[in-house]
Amino acid sequence: MNFADRLLRAIDKKENLSIVGLDPDVEFIPQHIQDKSLDEKGNNFEAVGVAFLEFNKRIIDSVADIVPAIKPQIAFYEIYKAPGIIAFDETIKYAKQKGLLVIEDGKRNDVGNTARKYSEGHLGRVKLLRRKNEKEIEIPSFDLDALTVNGYLGSDCILEFVKDCKNYGKGIFVLDKTSNPSAGELQDETLSSGIKLSEGMAHLINEWGKGTEGEESYKSVGAVVGATYAIDAQTLRKIMTSNVFLVPGHGAQGGKSEDIPNFVNKDGRGAIVNSSRGIIAAYSKTPYLEKYGEEGFYKASREEAVKMKEEINQALRNSGKSRW
Amino acid sequence: MNFADRLLRAIDKKENLSIVGLDPDVEFIPQHIQDKSLDEKGNNFEAVGVAFLEFNKRIIDSVADIVPAIKPQIAFYEIYKAPGIIAFDETIKYAKQKGLLVIEDGKRNDVGNTARKYSEGHLGRVKLLRRKNEKEIEIPSFDLDALTVNGYLGSDCILEFVKDCKNYGKGIFVLDKTSNPSAGELQDETLSSGIKLSEGMAHLINEWGKGTEGEESYKSVGAVVGATYAIDAQTLRKIMTSNVFLVPGHGAQGGKSEDIPNFVNKDGRGAIVNSSRGIIAAYSKTPYLEKYGEEGFYKASREEAVKMKEEINQALRNSGKSRW
Repeated sequence: MNFADRLLRAIDKKENLSIVGLDPDVEFIPQHIQDKSLDEKGNNFEAVGVAFLEFNKRIIDSVADIVPAIKPQIAFYEIYKAPGIIAFDETIKYAKQKGLLVIEDGKRNDVGNTARKYSEGHLGRVKLLRRKNEKEIEIPSFDLDALTVNGYLGSDCILEFVKDCKNYGKGIFVLDKTSNPSAGELQDETLSSGIKLSEGMAHLINEWGKGTEGEESYKSVGAVVGATYAIDAQTLRKIMTSNVFLVPGHGAQGGKSEDIPNFVNKDGRGAIVNSSRGIIAAYSKTPYLEKYGEEGFYKASREEAVKMKEEINQALRNSGKSRW
Repeated sequence: MNFADRLLRAIDKKENLSIVGLDPDVEFIPQHIQDKSLDEKGNNFEAVGVAFLEFNKRIIDSVADIVPAIKPQIAFYEIYKAPGIIAFDETIKYAKQKGLLVIEDGKRNDVGNTARKYSEGHLGRVKLLRRKNEKEIEIPSFDLDALTVNGYLGSDCILEFVKDCKNYGKGIFVLDKTSNPSAGELQDETLSSGIKLSEGMAHLINEWGKGTEGEESYKSVGAVVGATYAIDAQTLRKIMTSNVFLVPGHGAQGGKSEDIPNFVNKDGRGAIVNSSRGIIAAYSKTPYLEKYGEEGFYKASREEAVKMKEEINQALRNSGKSRW
């Protein structure tokens, strides 16, 4: 089924626009999980991978009935080589089993033939070896629901991913206005046509999405628009009327729930809002550490996820854009 | 030692600006390697990884005395999950043992904290788990000599990589003008200051490289400038006088040896030129298939690598920019 439809229906079912970023870091993996991994595996990359997976599973268990999707950022895993990639892959499988959509934050892209490979591996099908004269065998690899991609290289690269969006009901989110402080350095540059680069990118994203519309009238090609840039979001929303915004930067990076109405359409649709560290490392802050201890880290994550959902829904109601 | 110094001296030693892209694809792995892997591993991702590594090792053996560096494109490996990453990692180690520099084509980047992780994993050091009150342990992971990165997100992200360039003698190549047909769509946009986006990016790349200069007066922060855009290269060369250009798109994509003088400075320095498929899949074309057979694929690669070296050196001599 079309990715945009799957996403919008999951959002409606949970009555929640917010998603959880699964970006595990040895800096905040609870001590009991670290100790168990060290006992079992020794102090190596395998131990890190096992600890990440254990950590992720408890968080997933704890938020699966609240959020429509999770967003693992592959950087945190791939830096631990094969054991990290195994943790990433098992996290995806576990989240899918629990009925969650999985959006990979990989910010991948490359020129034509290589973009094709990225798309095959993360969204589509990859080819196996074969004997002489045998037929080609293609199977899914990571098989994500959606992937973030970088559009700087232009259409021919992005369209390699769009192919798999159409063929396999997948989605992409193209970086438009990112959440970091230096985002504007290039993205706010005024083009000769008088619009900003991020607006030029928005017109392209809108174009790239043609043919990926679902029954709910949204496209499976979306845009990354940082929660920290609510004013830009208003402008970009007008250009990309039927593209879903993936909104990172909520919480830790400074994005606020009361700004979220700027990111959605009048129907209350068209955005998902991510928080990573704010949710998954919540346990280490007051009052959670006193309340649940490190061992109850996932309870703190659940409480923060509920709080985020309610804050955003309240902001949507206040702006007259709530569906619920 | 400083990356730019290591690279320039390796180029001088081999009298060769050209490098080999190790982008293995099941489409052109010779049948005898496929059969051996299928026999040993069955038809799965592990078999693909083992075949890729075997293929790469023979190519590396065959060109190690000719080229200064290899450039594996991680997309081709990561799409086969952990077994692909193992092949990637073992390829890096093998090439280093043979005295080659290894430039990863990953086109990575993300916002601050995540850029930090990418940099730690690909260039710097990653953290392991630890017992309570134990000191933090950091060790190298992929430990590449250099990595390609995407600059669309701006300075704060790029500077995370630059830190590790300085700390560990590593390098980055920031995408400026890419080699694909749609590259100009965004990269040729005229900014309000009257210059192209790729030129604006070039000024930033120059700035980002400050403090990474080596004894040979070049910076360890370079730029990706496609072999297919020789006219742009002339302009960009004037902005980035001391940044090394990584020039992809030679051969299969249409870039020509006679254009390479546009990419170097008057001293004949400042560029490396990559060919992937043109070298590693050379065996399948006339006259090589008749001459060496599929089993002698690596001999065809060597011959093509020598041909590329000589063609480029001839073009440099013709332009009066040759060092040799």
